[in-house]
Amino acid sequence: MNYDFSDNFKSLAPSAIREILKNAGDPSIIAFAAGNPNAASFPLSDIRRLCAEILESPAALQYGTTEGYGPLRASVRERQRVRFGIGRDFDDTLITSGGQQGLELACRVLCNPGDTVLAEDPSFIGALNAFRGIGARVVGVPLESDGMDLEILKEKLDSEARVKLIYLISSFQNPSGICTSLEKRREIYRLAKEKGVIILEDNPYGELRFRGEDIPTVKSFDEDGIVIYSSSFSKLLSAGMRVGFVIAPAEIVSKMTVAKQTEDVHTNLLFQMLCHRFLTECDFDAHVKGISELYGKKCGIMLDAMQQHFPGGVTYTRPDGGLFVWCTLPKEIELLPFVRAALSRGVAVVPGTAFATDTSRYTEHSFRVTYATPTDEQLVRGVEILGEIVRESL
Amino acid sequence: MNYDFSDNFKSLAPSAIREILKNAGDPSIIAFAAGNPNAASFPLSDIRRLCAEILESPAALQYGTTEGYGPLRASVRERQRVRFGIGRDFDDTLITSGGQQGLELACRVLCNPGDTVLAEDPSFIGALNAFRGIGARVVGVPLESDGMDLEILKEKLDSEARVKLIYLISSFQNPSGICTSLEKRREIYRLAKEKGVIILEDNPYGELRFRGEDIPTVKSFDEDGIVIYSSSFSKLLSAGMRVGFVIAPAEIVSKMTVAKQTEDVHTNLLFQMLCHRFLTECDFDAHVKGISELYGKKCGIMLDAMQQHFPGGVTYTRPDGGLFVWCTLPKEIELLPFVRAALSRGVAVVPGTAFATDTSRYTEHSFRVTYATPTDEQLVRGVEILGEIVRESL
Repeated sequence: MNYDFSDNFKSLAPSAIREILKNAGDPSIIAFAAGNPNAASFPLSDIRRLCAEILESPAALQYGTTEGYGPLRASVRERQRVRFGIGRDFDDTLITSGGQQGLELACRVLCNPGDTVLAEDPSFIGALNAFRGIGARVVGVPLESDGMDLEILKEKLDSEARVKLIYLISSFQNPSGICTSLEKRREIYRLAKEKGVIILEDNPYGELRFRGEDIPTVKSFDEDGIVIYSSSFSKLLSAGMRVGFVIAPAEIVSKMTVAKQTEDVHTNLLFQMLCHRFLTECDFDAHVKGISELYGKKCGIMLDAMQQHFPGGVTYTRPDGGLFVWCTLPKEIELLPFVRAALSRGVAVVPGTAFATDTSRYTEHSFRVTYATPTDEQLVRGVEILGEIVRESL
Repeated sequence: MNYDFSDNFKSLAPSAIREILKNAGDPSIIAFAAGNPNAASFPLSDIRRLCAEILESPAALQYGTTEGYGPLRASVRERQRVRFGIGRDFDDTLITSGGQQGLELACRVLCNPGDTVLAEDPSFIGALNAFRGIGARVVGVPLESDGMDLEILKEKLDSEARVKLIYLISSFQNPSGICTSLEKRREIYRLAKEKGVIILEDNPYGELRFRGEDIPTVKSFDEDGIVIYSSSFSKLLSAGMRVGFVIAPAEIVSKMTVAKQTEDVHTNLLFQMLCHRFLTECDFDAHVKGISELYGKKCGIMLDAMQQHFPGGVTYTRPDGGLFVWCTLPKEIELLPFVRAALSRGVAVVPGTAFATDTSRYTEHSFRVTYATPTDEQLVRGVEILGEIVRESL
């Protein structure tokens, strides 16, 4: 049978990059391509204990409400308000099945096919594909070392048709590791307000800072009800449990709740209860500090190795948090042959083309690596191998 | 701020019925309106034990693949093939976040806005809203006591524009409790094949038969790759865990996987592992038999009470399985005042209008009740009260 797929999904296919990386799961490969948190960051014994306690009663096994488990909505709201100044009286909280669902639902309730989402270029492929799957046009705004190029953002806000959303990952961006500066956050907020465009702020890594001072989120400025804030417990408690949250104006949360109900009715209830208990009974801040320190140490090892083994022509970001370093090759080295060569020598990296807002653009010379999951030895050895390939390719 | 929502969600709002039933959660109310399984049907101690064993390692806490946990995909495929004759070489299995997600994803990858889904009338509101949220037109085919009215199905297949899906709940339908007969299943399959239309067969209750012989699913006839089969563990192991599955032609599963990745990346991994272990290590068939017996007993109590307390003018289905009975009032009794009166006397039922494929149709005289969760005493007392209100309204 010849299946006639919908316009939105006809063209969305597993990417060529996935094809390149399909052997990257081989345990002998140094997994610089992964997007996983380090398993040591999951509080396994607390999770085991809390699961057992919650399962003393069958309550977690019954249907829950789409908005989310009430006590978790309250504890998330409270923590975000007190620690990060996020949330006003007009805001409401929705528990989502991971951060991904928050991004997808936001676009679903706001964008018609053909509407435009302005996104940092490069950006998180999972979000870009969610927007594309809704039929939205993704238009990139080049990322500078302190956030979007604001001149180009202004230009696109004026010139692109039907701009509905500005999507940004404000801290330790995926794939670049970059933080948008406070000045740029304020200016993006001002521009969005002026143009009547909603900001979708994605912040799954913000708490994972291991150096420098926190920068207030864009949502923390939001006195006008124009920011949808999406975050997640995936990098803090467990990625596999799929629990995230959105804080946004109640009217938007209400529509997202209707949309969520059509997708999965509600998020796994046991793990919602578990997140609530961890937030209120365990020392969440100390736990997060521990993860940040782990990543800070690993990042330091990787950056030191890059300093030592990368030839001068290779540039790379020096993140203050999060999971990723973004490396850029000299222009004379072709990216995809480099990535293939690395894989054949046992190192998987993600070619920057995977994160391009314009999928027809293959002029990219950057690649993403993570320091989160490899062992300390793999961090050094992997960088050494990448350095060798660069030198051989020059 | 005045939010400009997408066309698909602008009009999708929490329903008027939800407004009527918003106090139905009060524990003093007899909850005939619920759609929940009985908590006694969840194998709590096995779930507690399996969770603890799985959490000996952090594997369940890490990201998984979108298609689902490999061993669970295999054990689901095997059980469906051996016990129900479901699945051919061209089929593949996708683990979903509850049965709801399978229905939504199927429509998302196949329907453009304006495409038509033919559905039993009445039908499951969660599915109908999922189709509406994608912009599909839902067109009803009246349900007879043995399934869709096939004359009208034929007529709609010829007359309606762009029919992409036929949606049916083949066994113990929600809300009616009706099973589509074997003859009608075969004829629906034949018609779909002839017209090149895909069948979306939803079967969350099929295993909960407490009387009579199993009827083969439509999917079990599928030699042509035209049936998407969606089911779930919500009524068998736990509703709150949100684990379901789809068995469908691999090409369709592949598109649904791309769509699922944009929605929630993957389904909660711990509970996928748990379902696999329960399927392979516990006596799943005996467990399901126990639930069916529980519901059979409760259904008998409710039907006996109806026999005794309902005046002759009230008709009702006599289900052989599942969770629901569908009652129809004499035409002279107005439905919504009846539902309000019942609620004010402490009995919540769902007015049939909630399940109408044509939301502008308010000529309905039926309502849905469940026997799954009330106590035996509540079953009798609730029916008694409903009978009194009918008599007073005549």
